[in-house]
Amino acid sequence: MQKKFNELKTRLMEISDLDHVGALLDWDQSTYMPPGGAVARGRHLALLARLSHQKSIDPELGKLLDELRPYEESLPYDSDDASLIRVARREYERAIKVPPQFMSELFQHFSNSYNAWVVARPENNFKALIPHLERGVDLCRQLADFFPGYEHVADPLIDFVDYGMKTTFLRTLFAQLRRELVPIVQTITDQPPADDACLKKHFPEADQLDFSLEVIKQLGYDFNRGRQDKTHHPFMTKFSLGDVRITTRVDENDLSGCLFSTIHESGHAMYEQGIRMEFEGTPLGGGASAGVHESQSRTWENLVGRSRGFWEYFYPKVQAKFPDQLKGVSLDTFYRAVNKVQRSLIRTEADEVTYNLHVMIRFDIELALLEYNLLVRDLPEYWHVRYQADMGIRAPDDRDGVMQDVHWFSGLIGGSFQGYTLGNIMGAQFFAQALKAHPEIPAEMAQGKFDTLHTWLVDNVYQHGRKFTANELIQRVTGGQLSIEPYMAYLKMKFGELYKL
Amino acid sequence: MQKKFNELKTRLMEISDLDHVGALLDWDQSTYMPPGGAVARGRHLALLARLSHQKSIDPELGKLLDELRPYEESLPYDSDDASLIRVARREYERAIKVPPQFMSELFQHFSNSYNAWVVARPENNFKALIPHLERGVDLCRQLADFFPGYEHVADPLIDFVDYGMKTTFLRTLFAQLRRELVPIVQTITDQPPADDACLKKHFPEADQLDFSLEVIKQLGYDFNRGRQDKTHHPFMTKFSLGDVRITTRVDENDLSGCLFSTIHESGHAMYEQGIRMEFEGTPLGGGASAGVHESQSRTWENLVGRSRGFWEYFYPKVQAKFPDQLKGVSLDTFYRAVNKVQRSLIRTEADEVTYNLHVMIRFDIELALLEYNLLVRDLPEYWHVRYQADMGIRAPDDRDGVMQDVHWFSGLIGGSFQGYTLGNIMGAQFFAQALKAHPEIPAEMAQGKFDTLHTWLVDNVYQHGRKFTANELIQRVTGGQLSIEPYMAYLKMKFGELYKL
Repeated sequence: MQKKFNELKTRLMEISDLDHVGALLDWDQSTYMPPGGAVARGRHLALLARLSHQKSIDPELGKLLDELRPYEESLPYDSDDASLIRVARREYERAIKVPPQFMSELFQHFSNSYNAWVVARPENNFKALIPHLERGVDLCRQLADFFPGYEHVADPLIDFVDYGMKTTFLRTLFAQLRRELVPIVQTITDQPPADDACLKKHFPEADQLDFSLEVIKQLGYDFNRGRQDKTHHPFMTKFSLGDVRITTRVDENDLSGCLFSTIHESGHAMYEQGIRMEFEGTPLGGGASAGVHESQSRTWENLVGRSRGFWEYFYPKVQAKFPDQLKGVSLDTFYRAVNKVQRSLIRTEADEVTYNLHVMIRFDIELALLEYNLLVRDLPEYWHVRYQADMGIRAPDDRDGVMQDVHWFSGLIGGSFQGYTLGNIMGAQFFAQALKAHPEIPAEMAQGKFDTLHTWLVDNVYQHGRKFTANELIQRVTGGQLSIEPYMAYLKMKFGELYKL
Repeated sequence: MQKKFNELKTRLMEISDLDHVGALLDWDQSTYMPPGGAVARGRHLALLARLSHQKSIDPELGKLLDELRPYEESLPYDSDDASLIRVARREYERAIKVPPQFMSELFQHFSNSYNAWVVARPENNFKALIPHLERGVDLCRQLADFFPGYEHVADPLIDFVDYGMKTTFLRTLFAQLRRELVPIVQTITDQPPADDACLKKHFPEADQLDFSLEVIKQLGYDFNRGRQDKTHHPFMTKFSLGDVRITTRVDENDLSGCLFSTIHESGHAMYEQGIRMEFEGTPLGGGASAGVHESQSRTWENLVGRSRGFWEYFYPKVQAKFPDQLKGVSLDTFYRAVNKVQRSLIRTEADEVTYNLHVMIRFDIELALLEYNLLVRDLPEYWHVRYQADMGIRAPDDRDGVMQDVHWFSGLIGGSFQGYTLGNIMGAQFFAQALKAHPEIPAEMAQGKFDTLHTWLVDNVYQHGRKFTANELIQRVTGGQLSIEPYMAYLKMKFGELYKL
């Protein structure tokens, strides 16, 4: 049996290795590749994806998984070996359900649709995108139909990234969150806005990069197993558990962009760096789900990086780095600036309080489109109505309205957004547990010490990789279910100090 | 037939793509990879090499090549299609002759032997390397024996990189070159040495990089299809004809290192960038041989980059970049400094006149070892004797003696060195032809114009890629055979102006 199990691991490692090689090609494409490399790079990526897919649906792999079922069943559910077989089987069964021909069509559609979006968005030409979105909705429904027996058509699509999260449950949870958030946003934005002029001076690129790297080193990002490079749209990527990289961008007229994006990506990266090395090359060697991943990037970015304790420690340092720009700016002013709440149009730039409203609008739209309850041609107007209702503003055009995010034009319609809000909710749940175990964490942060928190997260979340689903992990860590309570308590406590709530 | 030909091209492109993906992994390993990435990177490279090798020896490929023989024979020898089939068959037949098991053994040996060298060289411990070198010699003889019918045991090994060059011919050619060079070195080094103190001041890294990039841009290196990064041992690498990169290193106390290594690598790169795009992904889409490749790096580094005309144009620019360091240094002093001839121990740092003596000592040693005419344990002494005879100096130890180069410890013993001297000889032959066609080239260089030369090289050498062997290319370009005359004429003319010869 051990021989078969080793054969399984060998096969899975080849798949994992091919995927990680593809990730390196993607990274290079986004960081250093000269323009002339584009055509061949596309071909190389397609070849690696094809080789990986062939190995992922190899009937020999299915046979091995069948033969290993008795071994799996002889072990405890949470043993490493049983978990490996269980997760590998889940992925294999998912992979073989979708005909390769359909996958090609879908990727071809993503490519066409993305290219159309690149042209249409700057021209504010939503009309040109209607046929692409309509086809996108149809294809995503078809994709869902390869997984019959679902309760909601979005469920199989959500399963791709947030396995086990059900639409009905999320809809209720998000509605509850929206009910709480909308009046808070209203109350806060009726008060005078925070002054963030201190963040909008000229901050040289090299100094911003230096400071960001100093911060994440102190947080616990391991530069022996990672590095940072520049790109247009920051991301985290991984070529092995020993090589987890992040990217960033710098706006010299804004101190917060590079810093918080660096902390955000380092949160994703510390999660991956914290996975047990034994899981290298197996399906367990990655984050549990989109939501759990986002919970960690948001934890480090917001719960840590925008906390008062964090800035009690780091503000003298950033002030020393930028003495002219921050001369006469008090810690309190700076802290309020990095936590400024405002009605805004752009999701990726939104503050902690409004962010989830952006996300939930998109989640609701995905569901309505998939249900055929909303027609693509009515999307722009629906967008404006929801922004008016939730946020109290209206985008001047569709460019910063419905065409704002790349997701629906380069990926699935359905399953693309819930992870962001799930991340905020789960992040607060995990963090509350960490505080319960170690009430000294906030005081430590104010002294620049982050290892108690980091170690707790490694022990309770990171090390497990994908052994457990998000729901299983929440159960193990909190003893309960996904819940917005800790998140709302956190927001009310923090912003209640900054505004009258 | 067209269908079969297209199938051949598809198969060859997959092999080429896998190899180029491997090249990107190597590049990243030498430039940016954090230490923690090493283990998985080795595994990823091995996987890609295995997949590429499987496809290279696929009997279906052999069958296709057989079926395409009538098509090949119906076409002129120098047609693209016939050349593609011919070169693909040459590679296929070579690949299937060596058992995969032997190749694994060989690579395992390289790996062990390289690791031993990394430890033994700094310790000046040649003894520890004797068993590795002995095994290396045995394995290389065995490798040659998979290609029976050779005239000299080194021929099959030379064929791997300089196809068609025969040991007997090279031995005669090199002996002739040595006879000419030894007395010239003697004559020059009896005269007062050039003063190169102006190159040994402090030159900040960023300025050196700037200047080097400015130079190679003007020479014709295309940054839309390439870029430069830093590494320990500079090299050129290619991921497609649209992405040909170079690397460099900087010593802040030496102006010439980064500059000439950058020009050298850009010469390799301009060769690859000049290959016809139709050859992308085929066995024709690379340089003709190690020798022809080196001919171009050495042409741009020496025949161009160390010429008087080049510095008439660039000296005011480098002086403007480093006004303090080069204050009061005349063009003539600077020109003599970058062309300083001296007896030296290290091949990679040798000047134009002595360089080939270093190479030919190594070539002779390879032959003697393979012939079992020289025993590994006698190598250090043989080395010293030859250096005394050819160069008039003796290394203080084996570190800078026989353990100097990595080649024999990480690659074949046999075929590893002749390309360097072949490059110098061929480079001068091609350059002489270019001057015959365009006598204005030296005057143009003095005005910073390099496109006449560059275009001539693209038209006559670069565009053909691997369509022709080195010997065929020399025949086409010069109408004659490989010959040291143009090279010796060049050296005598140039150094006759700098020294009494």
